[in-house]
Amino acid sequence: MSQFLKVKTAEEVLDILKTLDFLEAETVRLEQACGRILATPVSAPEPVPHFARATMDGYAVRARDTFGASESLPALLEITDEVSMGKPVSATTEKGKAIAIPTGGMLPSGADSVVMVEYTIPMDEKTIEVIKPVAPGDNVLKEGEDIGLGEELFGAGWHLRPQDIGVLAALGMQAVSVRRRPKVAILSTGDEIVPVSTEVVPAGKIRDINTFTLTAQVQEAGAEVGFKSLVEDDLDALISACRKALDTHDVVVLSGGSSVGVRDFTLRVLDFFPEAELLVHGVAVRPGKPTILARIGKKLFWGLPGQPVSAMMICRAFVLPSLMILQGAESALEPGAEYGNTCRAVLNRRLPSVHGRTDYVPVIVSRVEGEIHATPVFGKSAMISTLARSDGYVIIPAHVEGLDPGSEVTVHLFQRV
Amino acid sequence: MSQFLKVKTAEEVLDILKTLDFLEAETVRLEQACGRILATPVSAPEPVPHFARATMDGYAVRARDTFGASESLPALLEITDEVSMGKPVSATTEKGKAIAIPTGGMLPSGADSVVMVEYTIPMDEKTIEVIKPVAPGDNVLKEGEDIGLGEELFGAGWHLRPQDIGVLAALGMQAVSVRRRPKVAILSTGDEIVPVSTEVVPAGKIRDINTFTLTAQVQEAGAEVGFKSLVEDDLDALISACRKALDTHDVVVLSGGSSVGVRDFTLRVLDFFPEAELLVHGVAVRPGKPTILARIGKKLFWGLPGQPVSAMMICRAFVLPSLMILQGAESALEPGAEYGNTCRAVLNRRLPSVHGRTDYVPVIVSRVEGEIHATPVFGKSAMISTLARSDGYVIIPAHVEGLDPGSEVTVHLFQRV
Repeated sequence: MSQFLKVKTAEEVLDILKTLDFLEAETVRLEQACGRILATPVSAPEPVPHFARATMDGYAVRARDTFGASESLPALLEITDEVSMGKPVSATTEKGKAIAIPTGGMLPSGADSVVMVEYTIPMDEKTIEVIKPVAPGDNVLKEGEDIGLGEELFGAGWHLRPQDIGVLAALGMQAVSVRRRPKVAILSTGDEIVPVSTEVVPAGKIRDINTFTLTAQVQEAGAEVGFKSLVEDDLDALISACRKALDTHDVVVLSGGSSVGVRDFTLRVLDFFPEAELLVHGVAVRPGKPTILARIGKKLFWGLPGQPVSAMMICRAFVLPSLMILQGAESALEPGAEYGNTCRAVLNRRLPSVHGRTDYVPVIVSRVEGEIHATPVFGKSAMISTLARSDGYVIIPAHVEGLDPGSEVTVHLFQRV
Repeated sequence: MSQFLKVKTAEEVLDILKTLDFLEAETVRLEQACGRILATPVSAPEPVPHFARATMDGYAVRARDTFGASESLPALLEITDEVSMGKPVSATTEKGKAIAIPTGGMLPSGADSVVMVEYTIPMDEKTIEVIKPVAPGDNVLKEGEDIGLGEELFGAGWHLRPQDIGVLAALGMQAVSVRRRPKVAILSTGDEIVPVSTEVVPAGKIRDINTFTLTAQVQEAGAEVGFKSLVEDDLDALISACRKALDTHDVVVLSGGSSVGVRDFTLRVLDFFPEAELLVHGVAVRPGKPTILARIGKKLFWGLPGQPVSAMMICRAFVLPSLMILQGAESALEPGAEYGNTCRAVLNRRLPSVHGRTDYVPVIVSRVEGEIHATPVFGKSAMISTLARSDGYVIIPAHVEGLDPGSEVTVHLFQRV
């Protein structure tokens, strides 16, 4: 395994992620399909609706019988029958006749349109006056007008939303083929880390934050967190924990293991996995430069900084996209993919940055006189409270040397699960 | 129960929702707390960090020993000890001395700052030259500098995100008090509705869509869906299903039951619940005007239109906010609450609208030459495919009579679960 690789740019890392193989497909029941990503395209096995339906309450008629009708010269039609919801009507709409029909009712044969009840005047129980003409097709949803037979509805990689589930329900598709959710192991290491349950934390130690934040983030991306463990900063313990994790998970996210003295501990762990292929060793970003990505057979191994803010930002910027890719969401890395959780804002402070490095800067979003403002949250990088105070972050690309106040920026909002 | 109420505006409905009582609080483990809403404010029971920490690799020093240091006139310091991660060091930093320290290491007594290793030149194993001065506090995170003892971190009603979980972990809070998730029953009715499992749908019938779409939406808002049922359009069957649902759920969402002939079926059902208080009977919106909201004791009863697109839009506009309010998210209805799932876009078609009615218009969002465009998706209201093709919707307020092309609009994006 080559240990000598140049630091990659953020874009290069995202390009590498795009080459990852998808996980296999599995079939899930429609009730469980929302939020999942389609493994195969879906076409309509039948038309929707499968019969012509009224879209308004009124009377099914032959449009030509209403031509020229007006308040002063209404068309007189005889009511011959009534359509009940959910039932076909045996009667045919003949010349000069009308059949009462509710919204959603099945259009009788012979009829080509529906006159809204608002444009009719009842004369007696059997007769109406139509005071406005209709054209063929008016107030009718034709067979296949909503969804045509054989129409491709969703491509592979489509992330199913509630309304998409509705379309599949309409078509009677009780199960769909989606990509399996990645199973992720979260390992945290560091000589200074003690479990959250530690009541009195000894001097020099701090409680484990990363296991909690990374688990919550990874679940946001639809992955399942299996094995979670605090591992002591010891090569044998780390190798054994990683081996166990890789056996039964698709992705291992290890944070820490790169403090002074044990710098590149994570890399040394990788040496014990002969299949390991180092894809990324350092990213030109701040925070989170000492990030590692390796492929171990079909599994993915992320080495994240131990510092909680850096670990969270790298997880958000790279780990979550990798989990979306494994689930087949090819569009996860396209520019359009950012719509869902961004907003445009006006920067109200100067943001310094260094050429050649991508910066992720936490910001508070506020509304000032109708304008959305982004206020950078400065703070020492080790402060977890900076992220808790922020609504999202701004990305300063590598080729930009800082942003001036008044710049329009895209804020990547921290999602709520 | 008064059956005669005037149609409410969308704003009036939201104002009513703000008066709903929160569900009771429950204690959940930190691992399960992400996405939940705090029932009580959280203050810091201890400071973070609870000891002064280095934020850089380098040497713990007394800042005054470096004053005036430069490349031409470096300060010479003797290295007397080394801090290990996670351990206190017994040595004190004395005048003219330095103690090696890693990022995150505990600052030795006597030291007030850390000189970055980059600004030191090793002379021998025991001596360094410092070529740049530090001020007291430089490269040090002081006790309580991240989070002060007793500091109020989150107010009641705060929606916990991954980083907030990280803050709670840092403080050793293994459990938090959050509002209970609402338990929701989803009932769908309509003479024309058959189960999704129906292989050959008879003429005049259509498959049940609402049970699936409403379930997926309601789960998006953090609610638990319990009882789900397709109920025949029969008063006794509906009363019995509602009674069963109200017994064991906080919210009942009934769609359908308002077709011609059975118009106000839902209201007739409410008559059989003496405690029922009708809060809303009709909303000046499109789609979804025939919407009903009632309070039955401490339970909430929503009557939604049967038409799937109308049901989804009303669910999104009113039912989901009501579920957030029940969970204690007072901010769910504030203007700022829309940041998370909106984007600004330029409308590229004219949108007609009627004064006095709030319109929800589905749109496709696309990027055209760096600008985000919103293209309205027109289509007959009964078409479920219009929502599947849309990325979100634009709200045209009641006081606006249509929007011109080129108008800047807020698109409310359809969330992916």
